[in-house]
Amino acid sequence: MLTFIGLGLYDQKDISVKGLEAIREADVVYAEFYTSRLMGATLEDMQELYGKPVKVLMREDVEQHPKDTVLSDAVDKKVVFLTGGDAMVATTHVDLRLRAKKMGIETRLIHGASIQSAVCGLTGLQNYRFGKSATIAFPYKDIISETPYDTILMNKKNGLHTLLFLDIDREKGYMTVNRGIELLLKVEERRKEGAVAGALCVGIARAGSPSPCVRAGRIEELQAFDFGGPLHIMVMPADLHFLEEEALQDLAGLKLG
Amino acid sequence: MLTFIGLGLYDQKDISVKGLEAIREADVVYAEFYTSRLMGATLEDMQELYGKPVKVLMREDVEQHPKDTVLSDAVDKKVVFLTGGDAMVATTHVDLRLRAKKMGIETRLIHGASIQSAVCGLTGLQNYRFGKSATIAFPYKDIISETPYDTILMNKKNGLHTLLFLDIDREKGYMTVNRGIELLLKVEERRKEGAVAGALCVGIARAGSPSPCVRAGRIEELQAFDFGGPLHIMVMPADLHFLEEEALQDLAGLKLG
Repeated sequence: MLTFIGLGLYDQKDISVKGLEAIREADVVYAEFYTSRLMGATLEDMQELYGKPVKVLMREDVEQHPKDTVLSDAVDKKVVFLTGGDAMVATTHVDLRLRAKKMGIETRLIHGASIQSAVCGLTGLQNYRFGKSATIAFPYKDIISETPYDTILMNKKNGLHTLLFLDIDREKGYMTVNRGIELLLKVEERRKEGAVAGALCVGIARAGSPSPCVRAGRIEELQAFDFGGPLHIMVMPADLHFLEEEALQDLAGLKLG
Repeated sequence: MLTFIGLGLYDQKDISVKGLEAIREADVVYAEFYTSRLMGATLEDMQELYGKPVKVLMREDVEQHPKDTVLSDAVDKKVVFLTGGDAMVATTHVDLRLRAKKMGIETRLIHGASIQSAVCGLTGLQNYRFGKSATIAFPYKDIISETPYDTILMNKKNGLHTLLFLDIDREKGYMTVNRGIELLLKVEERRKEGAVAGALCVGIARAGSPSPCVRAGRIEELQAFDFGGPLHIMVMPADLHFLEEEALQDLAGLKLG
């Protein structure tokens, strides 16, 4: 039996009561922190709450040799597999689940809070007004991907907001809103199609923590704003509805006019 | 102090450990179940876990007279406000939060699992491939809204999946996938633009429960499929990526060819 458990957004207590019970009943506890991680908890904090050790797996372990660990254990033991955010959202988890299925291992999901809906709650932007999301990646050999720019452009044409995930890289670290803005503005310099220059932007830091930071303003103004520690995420909104505008004024310091 | 807590998807144990602690420390506990509700828990189940009574509010209480209950209490007491799914995603909650802010009441969010990301986990459909979502509403005086159809059409043109929320009505009850399909096919009869006829459809029931049902197939085939009890939700996918196709075959009984 293999149970995928989403740990939620920020610290060890964002797991559901159901998820915590499943960990306490498990024979083996695995976790991976390469797709996402809890910024407000150390591995020790987690182990203390769970009352048992957690084995942390690298991407290679999960994607290349899962039969050496998770899958062989799950054949005849109760195994839980922990991930930041909600369970099974990343491709790497879907792949693991399908491999388990092929081996006849029963799988189960225990969901956790996800940044996608948390952003709506924190900003007041309405979930049905979001179009496709995109990820701003660190440049690869100085090449900046234009995909986020194209996504913003397409969504704005359809009157939709764009949620922009910010890259997490083992060496380069956690991308900030500021760096994300810089990369978008560089693409704007080339493309000049007006998707981002002078546009409204919303930056969010530490969702799920006791001190989340949510700030809205013109993208150029936000570029120097200090959002504090990671994780960061951002939204490029389309035209705002009345209640959204009011929410960004009251919750995110938006100044109009 | 007013803390919005998302209860997650299915039963009383889908709340986070942090959320449960906040309830136990609260002076007053309010809940609303008109935007969403936990199908796997009664009010008694919840109260037993929390160790204290829960006052359930109607839409009128929250939207028209919040100062009679939540807001007046939150001025000098620790008040928690419980909702199904994630916290503060519905307009009605944003409105309540802004009113609290205006009265100088501090607000805080404790997130819960949301159906939006749960659908990705359950189906293997990738979250960055979803476009705008829509709601299939019960017909109003025999008028069927074409908005969901238009949304599917727009998303498919952009190669994106469409998440379709199914209406919850105090009198008409919980809309099933079957009824949602019937309404979409009726719009197709009029419009004949091919957004749904013969198309792939994915129905999901009881996300977050121990026995979720996930089924994929041609929309006409799914129309008679028995998904069991509520809540239901559905997806009209665009063309599938390889791993998505494999996931729907293995997890949702999709037969190709």
